[in-house]
Amino acid sequence: MAEKLTPRATNFSEWYVDVVLKSKLADYSDVKGCMVIRPNGYALWENMQRGLDGMFKATGHRNAYFPLLIPESFLRKEAEHVEGFAPQLAVVTHAGGKKLEEAYVIRPTSETIINSMFARWIQSYRDLPLLLNQWCNVMRWEMRTRLFLRTTEFLWQEGHTCHETDAEAQEETLRMLEVYRTFAEEWMAMPVLAGQKSDSEKFAGALRTYSIEAMMQDRKALQAGTSHHLGQNFARAFGTQFQGRDGQQHLVWQTSWGVSTRLIGGLVMTHSDDAGLVIPPKLAATHLVIVVIGKGEERAPVVARAQAVAEDLRKAGLSVIVDDDESKGPGFKYFEYELAGVCLRMELGPKDLAKSACVLVRRDDRSKETVPLDRAVAVAQAKLEAMQRSLFEKAKAFREANTFSVGSLEEMKKRADDGFLVARWCLAPACEARIKEETGGVTSRNRPFDLKQEPGACVVCGSPSPGAWVWAKAY
Amino acid sequence: MAEKLTPRATNFSEWYVDVVLKSKLADYSDVKGCMVIRPNGYALWENMQRGLDGMFKATGHRNAYFPLLIPESFLRKEAEHVEGFAPQLAVVTHAGGKKLEEAYVIRPTSETIINSMFARWIQSYRDLPLLLNQWCNVMRWEMRTRLFLRTTEFLWQEGHTCHETDAEAQEETLRMLEVYRTFAEEWMAMPVLAGQKSDSEKFAGALRTYSIEAMMQDRKALQAGTSHHLGQNFARAFGTQFQGRDGQQHLVWQTSWGVSTRLIGGLVMTHSDDAGLVIPPKLAATHLVIVVIGKGEERAPVVARAQAVAEDLRKAGLSVIVDDDESKGPGFKYFEYELAGVCLRMELGPKDLAKSACVLVRRDDRSKETVPLDRAVAVAQAKLEAMQRSLFEKAKAFREANTFSVGSLEEMKKRADDGFLVARWCLAPACEARIKEETGGVTSRNRPFDLKQEPGACVVCGSPSPGAWVWAKAY
Repeated sequence: MAEKLTPRATNFSEWYVDVVLKSKLADYSDVKGCMVIRPNGYALWENMQRGLDGMFKATGHRNAYFPLLIPESFLRKEAEHVEGFAPQLAVVTHAGGKKLEEAYVIRPTSETIINSMFARWIQSYRDLPLLLNQWCNVMRWEMRTRLFLRTTEFLWQEGHTCHETDAEAQEETLRMLEVYRTFAEEWMAMPVLAGQKSDSEKFAGALRTYSIEAMMQDRKALQAGTSHHLGQNFARAFGTQFQGRDGQQHLVWQTSWGVSTRLIGGLVMTHSDDAGLVIPPKLAATHLVIVVIGKGEERAPVVARAQAVAEDLRKAGLSVIVDDDESKGPGFKYFEYELAGVCLRMELGPKDLAKSACVLVRRDDRSKETVPLDRAVAVAQAKLEAMQRSLFEKAKAFREANTFSVGSLEEMKKRADDGFLVARWCLAPACEARIKEETGGVTSRNRPFDLKQEPGACVVCGSPSPGAWVWAKAY
Repeated sequence: MAEKLTPRATNFSEWYVDVVLKSKLADYSDVKGCMVIRPNGYALWENMQRGLDGMFKATGHRNAYFPLLIPESFLRKEAEHVEGFAPQLAVVTHAGGKKLEEAYVIRPTSETIINSMFARWIQSYRDLPLLLNQWCNVMRWEMRTRLFLRTTEFLWQEGHTCHETDAEAQEETLRMLEVYRTFAEEWMAMPVLAGQKSDSEKFAGALRTYSIEAMMQDRKALQAGTSHHLGQNFARAFGTQFQGRDGQQHLVWQTSWGVSTRLIGGLVMTHSDDAGLVIPPKLAATHLVIVVIGKGEERAPVVARAQAVAEDLRKAGLSVIVDDDESKGPGFKYFEYELAGVCLRMELGPKDLAKSACVLVRRDDRSKETVPLDRAVAVAQAKLEAMQRSLFEKAKAFREANTFSVGSLEEMKKRADDGFLVARWCLAPACEARIKEETGGVTSRNRPFDLKQEPGACVVCGSPSPGAWVWAKAY
């Protein structure tokens, strides 16, 4: 029998590492800060890619691929950008047995190399909007890493678009944030707050950054996706311009937006429990496992019926495995499939068969129901839909129960570990820095679009505040 | 009007570059030897990935992701491997603002980093076979590069598997070669010779390498995919072992196999013509374009009908665009869609509409047919199927017409640029080297499985030859 996971209540961080390693989502590698995404984890990423890629294409974007290496000089062309990323760069100084004349960095993000191409491709307003996306690996040298949440190398997608006007770029920035919100909530069943980031938290080189922020089960925040209005900063640095409808040359307005394999960490920390992974049906690699019960001769008809039911379930679009391995007991199997996050378990034995019934168990709430076999497909489908919905509702209720309006810095200090804190702020960086320092790490997450705003005073300095922000300790 | 392509007969290399750049498959970048894959090219890669990935999964493989960076010391663990790849490595010496204690290389292939993980994961014969695949970028510093065919960075998939026995690894090596053959012939409509590579052409670290080899329209060969039986070489270097059924520790037997974005170059050079891309329907991003013809008021009913037909075609699974842009003439449009390789063109104007008909033109042979509109879907489907078949048949006939049995080195020299040469060889590296030198670059491609073998003498030294090989100049 495999050993149990550290319970969440004992040590949330250890529980997280336990779940990721024991369910074989990922493993540590011998490369500093890099992990290996194992097949169970990569299958989740493939399903996420499928969902997101469909939404990107439905909004008119096309995929492309740009070089991994970026000439160092490109990064220096945008001052804030290089300042933001310089400490995290991995540098290629030698290649083909020789020292390179100019060093290359491994892309930490691709605005610069992509703008060097945009500047060639775009001539006229007829070439706009230009809507591209890239699925790739990027590298940011990190001091402290955590499986999926912060790794030196990670997989992501980065959208890069060019527009004629500021307004169109703003519209695109928010459109893609909304795509992320929809994906997080409808596919991952992970409720998020969509809103604008503070200046100190914005992307290096952007005009404005927006994010979606989720609450994990330890009540810390996870920034799960960002969308940037880049203004004309990179266009200016690279001369990305077009002949406008007025016959004049103009710099393009740009956006970029990304989500990464970090989402897998978010998925785990939102839904999983002390028994292992809980995966929303829309992203699950396996929807249902049929565990055959019984001994010796009585097994054969059960196996035959299990295969037939599996075929019916597959025809209905479910991913199903039949486990008729006689060398392991049902208890061990239940433990393994719960750890792996299979959404539904069907127990089928000779006694069930005699009654033309089976037992269906939901992974998330362990609810158990005896179901006539001829209704198994319909009931399984209904249970998966219910599970998708209820995972979202449960996570949302958890977030709401752990979100607090706070009226003073003192209160923020007291509630620093309690969850999301809604607090008015005057937008001064000094007040933001003071909150972080005095609370032991509470940072502004974003200013959610749908937060009810009432006039008031900054919780730190008492100056008039244009509105409230959400604050929390974050991954 | 856009300028025409260099004709193939004038300069095949220039024609190739023209096609790739003007159809916007790819572009040069500012990074030495690296290219940008533009959306038209990436769409081909996505379709190739879809086809191949389905075949890998159907043969029991699962995807995973391993680090981009490999500790230099890992490569040195397998002597032949490091010797083969050392001249092509890109090296990361600095990261996070510091010089690294041990340098990392950007993966040229991942046998070593993957074995470092296999060694941890595999305990017993019950863990075997272990069948993984990885879709990723790799980097090999090349002196002379060509768009898609040879670039410093390229995208590929690399399969890596572990087995209990030599025989099982051999079976897997050939199974995946057969997957490649099937994909090349049935999806890409590119006939290939499947066979074993000579020792001098085998993968650095492998026991045996097999390849599929295609003939391009300039009669040069393209190695389009390789499958390696790695024996126990990497297992020995990394201690990848398992407890066998006999209770003893054994080294695993391994394979690896890969195809890359090079296939896109092969696709272009196999089918395309002086008007631009010709793409097999199974890989085409756009199967059919409806070009609306007519002026002014008479256009409206044509556009409406075009949209309705497009909808019917889409329901039948075809990817269709309707071009009703009045600012460009039909001639210009035909030129553009031929360049882009759209498989079928439907011309639809007021006169056609009056007859409830349309004109369908096939991209590959330019055959033109007037078709009743109510049969458009069925005829379009039939034409696409016929096109897929006839591209393969045409390429195969071309290869057969340009394959010659040769009985002497003199004859090989004369026929050095004529295509595939079938010649007996004694397997001595010296004879192989002499052929290459005296013919100005003819190399052994492989020893095809289905080549009729008769006893005879080596064309160079006259010693007894165990069989004939296929020789050619190659990309």
